[in-house]
Amino acid sequence: MKNTFGNSVAVTLFGESHGEYIGAVVDGLAPGIEIDREYIGHMLTLRRPDGKISTPRKEKDEFRIISGVVNGKTTGTPVTVLIPNENVNSSDYSALKTVARPSHADYTAQCKYHGFQDSRGGGHFSGRITAALVAAGAICKSALEKKGILIGTHVKKCGGVADRDFGEYSADIQALSGKGFAVLDEACEEAMKNRIIEAASEGDSVGGILETAVIGIPEGVGEPWFDSAESVISHMMFSIPAVKGIEFGAGFGLADMKGSEANDPLIIKNGRIVTEKNDNGGINGGITNGMPIVFRTAIKPTPTIFKPQNTVDYQNMTETVTEPKGRHDPAIVHRARAVQDAATAIVICDMLAMRFGTDWINEL
Amino acid sequence: MKNTFGNSVAVTLFGESHGEYIGAVVDGLAPGIEIDREYIGHMLTLRRPDGKISTPRKEKDEFRIISGVVNGKTTGTPVTVLIPNENVNSSDYSALKTVARPSHADYTAQCKYHGFQDSRGGGHFSGRITAALVAAGAICKSALEKKGILIGTHVKKCGGVADRDFGEYSADIQALSGKGFAVLDEACEEAMKNRIIEAASEGDSVGGILETAVIGIPEGVGEPWFDSAESVISHMMFSIPAVKGIEFGAGFGLADMKGSEANDPLIIKNGRIVTEKNDNGGINGGITNGMPIVFRTAIKPTPTIFKPQNTVDYQNMTETVTEPKGRHDPAIVHRARAVQDAATAIVICDMLAMRFGTDWINEL
Amino acid sequence: MKNTFGNSVAVTLFGESHGEYIGAVVDGLAPGIEIDREYIGHMLTLRRPDGKISTPRKEKDEFRIISGVVNGKTTGTPVTVLIPNENVNSSDYSALKTVARPSHADYTAQCKYHGFQDSRGGGHFSGRITAALVAAGAICKSALEKKGILIGTHVKKCGGVADRDFGEYSADIQALSGKGFAVLDEACEEAMKNRIIEAASEGDSVGGILETAVIGIPEGVGEPWFDSAESVISHMMFSIPAVKGIEFGAGFGLADMKGSEANDPLIIKNGRIVTEKNDNGGINGGITNGMPIVFRTAIKPTPTIFKPQNTVDYQNMTETVTEPKGRHDPAIVHRARAVQDAATAIVICDMLAMRFGTDWINEL
Amino acid sequence: MKNTFGNSVAVTLFGESHGEYIGAVVDGLAPGIEIDREYIGHMLTLRRPDGKISTPRKEKDEFRIISGVVNGKTTGTPVTVLIPNENVNSSDYSALKTVARPSHADYTAQCKYHGFQDSRGGGHFSGRITAALVAAGAICKSALEKKGILIGTHVKKCGGVADRDFGEYSADIQALSGKGFAVLDEACEEAMKNRIIEAASEGDSVGGILETAVIGIPEGVGEPWFDSAESVISHMMFSIPAVKGIEFGAGFGLADMKGSEANDPLIIKNGRIVTEKNDNGGINGGITNGMPIVFRTAIKPTPTIFKPQNTVDYQNMTETVTEPKGRHDPAIVHRARAVQDAATAIVICDMLAMRFGTDWINEL
Repeated sequence: MKNTFGNSVAVTLFGESHGEYIGAVVDGLAPGIEIDREYIGHMLTLRRPDGKISTPRKEKDEFRIISGVVNGKTTGTPVTVLIPNENVNSSDYSALKTVARPSHADYTAQCKYHGFQDSRGGGHFSGRITAALVAAGAICKSALEKKGILIGTHVKKCGGVADRDFGEYSADIQALSGKGFAVLDEACEEAMKNRIIEAASEGDSVGGILETAVIGIPEGVGEPWFDSAESVISHMMFSIPAVKGIEFGAGFGLADMKGSEANDPLIIKNGRIVTEKNDNGGINGGITNGMPIVFRTAIKPTPTIFKPQNTVDYQNMTETVTEPKGRHDPAIVHRARAVQDAATAIVICDMLAMRFGTDWINEL
Repeated sequence: MKNTFGNSVAVTLFGESHGEYIGAVVDGLAPGIEIDREYIGHMLTLRRPDGKISTPRKEKDEFRIISGVVNGKTTGTPVTVLIPNENVNSSDYSALKTVARPSHADYTAQCKYHGFQDSRGGGHFSGRITAALVAAGAICKSALEKKGILIGTHVKKCGGVADRDFGEYSADIQALSGKGFAVLDEACEEAMKNRIIEAASEGDSVGGILETAVIGIPEGVGEPWFDSAESVISHMMFSIPAVKGIEFGAGFGLADMKGSEANDPLIIKNGRIVTEKNDNGGINGGITNGMPIVFRTAIKPTPTIFKPQNTVDYQNMTETVTEPKGRHDPAIVHRARAVQDAATAIVICDMLAMRFGTDWINEL
Repeated sequence: MKNTFGNSVAVTLFGESHGEYIGAVVDGLAPGIEIDREYIGHMLTLRRPDGKISTPRKEKDEFRIISGVVNGKTTGTPVTVLIPNENVNSSDYSALKTVARPSHADYTAQCKYHGFQDSRGGGHFSGRITAALVAAGAICKSALEKKGILIGTHVKKCGGVADRDFGEYSADIQALSGKGFAVLDEACEEAMKNRIIEAASEGDSVGGILETAVIGIPEGVGEPWFDSAESVISHMMFSIPAVKGIEFGAGFGLADMKGSEANDPLIIKNGRIVTEKNDNGGINGGITNGMPIVFRTAIKPTPTIFKPQNTVDYQNMTETVTEPKGRHDPAIVHRARAVQDAATAIVICDMLAMRFGTDWINEL
Repeated sequence: MKNTFGNSVAVTLFGESHGEYIGAVVDGLAPGIEIDREYIGHMLTLRRPDGKISTPRKEKDEFRIISGVVNGKTTGTPVTVLIPNENVNSSDYSALKTVARPSHADYTAQCKYHGFQDSRGGGHFSGRITAALVAAGAICKSALEKKGILIGTHVKKCGGVADRDFGEYSADIQALSGKGFAVLDEACEEAMKNRIIEAASEGDSVGGILETAVIGIPEGVGEPWFDSAESVISHMMFSIPAVKGIEFGAGFGLADMKGSEANDPLIIKNGRIVTEKNDNGGINGGITNGMPIVFRTAIKPTPTIFKPQNTVDYQNMTETVTEPKGRHDPAIVHRARAVQDAATAIVICDMLAMRFGTDWINEL
């Protein structure tokens, strides 16, 4: 449903890049969940642009919670988070720009909204809106942790540099939560940053791959067919701007395997049934098998670059050249990691609430 | 919602591999859509196992339409398709088997259904159910064609052999519709089949990649954020058993590109705004841009192979070895192509009905 | 969603009066629920026309369950019930009749389906379809009973004769379940039947009021605002053909009361908090309070009567007179009681599954 | 879905009586709809308490629109309305009160939220939240008017005094829009107000009936079975606090009629098919017939009265007596009229967008 996602725990997003506020309404949270403002602030910080390798736009993200919380705990009714848009450059408030930036939503917004869209700074399509998604997801992620369900995302690849795979999930996820630049192999950090800075210096940008793991999720969650765990998780992930692909477990790698290579033997370990390799990413037949849910998303390079590019003026129906000015990210993959964590937390909360009931996450 | 997908045009699936019938209810179809029984039959044939490279299970797929059609046209109320399960081997009707086949849904079904699941032939998780999805999708696909919206899927890769990319979409899609084995470069067909036969001879199986193109879809369809075109399409595609990944346009390839490489210049061609490369697969910001929608799915190798594999008996909590007997496919990627076509048709019909209203597809 | 209702437990209806089958798909039922075929058969009998005071159409309602049940228990995947349409008079299979019967759906079906609707015997609008709803609801009702949640509906009014109010709920509901003609005060039965027979003898029909009580439902179920218990129950009830009104507790009677009369004191009884009068019908602020849920629906008189009535031929746009022939009910209120019971069971199952999780009703 | 209603046009409500803001997010509005701030303000005024016959709480309702509107027109993305809660009495900010007011949501909130609910001034259950619903609905109502679809609600009954029925719909609806106290027969106004004042002087309250008419709605809108026009309208109306009943057309009156009395002949008038009496309230078989949609809701008397009432302290499980102090309405029926208008506008917009597509209401 457009800007609302979820069946039992549901998030509604609103706002524009240069509007007064962006925000999110999170409905269906169990009552009594502690709101950890520092936790939310920390996740917003992880998403926030950071000097050298990000847009110089300053975002303080001083969020306010205007409903659904009393005495620091959820009431059970909708929690609304507002984040003011500061540092909005008023000279940007010009009229609708009709020169479409390539690989942006400028032209499709025009196709859908016929000129009424807010085109300032990307309007409702701006990555800025993900700050509200992060705040909403932070509440969910924090609540999941108390049930022993941990979520972590690392930059698996950026500008051609690849991080190592997840090893010991629990330790890796906990390490990631403290890192400003989320790589498992710290040696990658500088290499990746260098690629970003290099691209930036050329007025260019880079893309990457994000890998997420969810541990502690009970087995038997999800549905066969249309609400398979992969279906609902992918539905959410493709809501994140710049995501153009997703794969679970060995994903596209499975396409080149034989069954005897791909199949994942079941074994008994410490009295629990587990798989040897987790090549199905924790999901079989749409239903969790108790292993970590693991998936990777493809993040395209930021489309706004400082090079002349061929494009059209859709109003005048003329071909032209665009060369953007302003503040832009040479990469977003390292920031999107917080968004992917948050988005994952929301979808997992919803799946669990559908399976175990509205109060499960904070059963008293 | 579990076994129902869609907001305006909605499909509900039911049935088990060894039950009396499988079937689908398609609700929300505009009135007056012609039901082309041959078209449905043809798509079922494309999905049907074919001797050498498939399971020897014989499926006649003699579907019956038991509601929603009068005088060969949709009434506008739910269309129900029933397909009897013939060739069901009664000796299979044994009790719940508690030895889980690796990488199957056997164990997760147990986790979710606690022993009550129908485990005969995979039960409700069986690929057999996709026959009903194909019949439902065939009605949608046929209706879309009359509006100039064509859908085609080819085996982009199978057993390591790669087909060529789409070239002239319209010609390619039309060529595919007549092919029993859906490749664009016919030279691939034998090579792929050989890999399948080879794997079969070893008791093994192969996976692959399916690529789908949708042409003729209007621009401006889809939504920003949660109901992005990618979100709803991927939601549907991960409902197809064996799909473990999806990517749109250049997909995971974008992760390694620079912005200057990935960006897709807009140009004017024959008075229409188009992109040069379609690297975003026809979708920007979640909304169609009028270019072909192009996506690829990763199909894992059939998990049932005729080799001994380590696994567990989940009831006795013991490790054991399984070596399946019976009828199984050494590859399903060539059959799944019809499923992907059908599933795509359903989701596209729903998106269009949401955008343009319930009658649009057959506006009189 | 048109012909599908429910979020966790969902029912999809299909079929037409003179089609081959009518049926229902019930998705989301917990695994392991016993299917009591006699119970279903009994509820179908309560809905079935009975000689003197109903249509002479014979309905054997020999339902078949073609999916979702193994060894007499639900598997957890969709349960599909098929009911063949026997006793279909082939001379009825004529073309679309374009003379609209007053207060029927004939004209509105034309407005929506533009001549493609199945107009034989009311097509998809026929009360016949409620047999499938009853079968679906019977499964739910039977499962609820095992959790101590009982549902009963009586004919509160018919042809001007009023039954007594519910007294001792538990005893009354159990008494109703065995009655072919559902009144609490048995003295009413003959009076009501006489009014029906009298109306029939004049070629006329009568309406009435149905009152339903649900006991044993836990407190704290339902939602504030849009998914209030009243909202979802009324949504379902207005799906029953002929229902034109609904009221909860004292309902429209509250409109004429003062607050001091309407307010319902809370007291403690046997260690539980209860209300003295239950004038809010078990629901405050959209949420159950643990008291019986009580509501009444207004059932309009069967619109098909054997008297000449002014109407139009919508194709020729001419005024004309209609005088229906065939088989029709002089009253449906006594049959609709089984439909209301069944519809209530479905909606209650869905509310409970949303609140307590998918397995709650059969937690093992 | 809890605090979100609608499939294509959807409203999400949030906030509490004594929180910082209440608000609504309206998603799915067509782009280019003019936002008439005076219109919204006017509807808020109609809902606002007015001296003698309402609570003395002062509500300025200075709403702000913080997203989805540029240059006074909708962008097509979510419109968010914020209304600050002024005149909040800080002495009310005490801890959870555990004495439940009879016929209020106090006890059911406790059952559902286990003590975490915001109990200040009714919290999320407060009628105060309807101000946000009114603002959201005002945008929809204003847009509908430009398509010739008019909505009007009058106080059909209050404190036992009955207003006349709708006569000439168009004129009546237009007259109502200017009236602060919505009656058709102006002679009723004083009588009703006297009853309210009288009740207030006794520390008591009165209820009433609201009747709504919608004219200009096209025929063929709505669905058979579960999304019947009555189903979706009633779903919305029972979201309004204090509504305990709804009836369409002749409603409960039909229960006592014979078919020959209830049936509504179709005739041709000015080249259009209409009914003579509109006893089905513009809806047959769940689908609009082009006649005015007419329905009535039962509004219970305000439960907060200034008389001692028996109740319980649910924490201590003791019986006690409550005698509320503070600011309360002796009647809300005259204020709820604006809420019912607004709620109707939202549901009608959603039904039309589902039927005719997202842009229909502002097709360019």
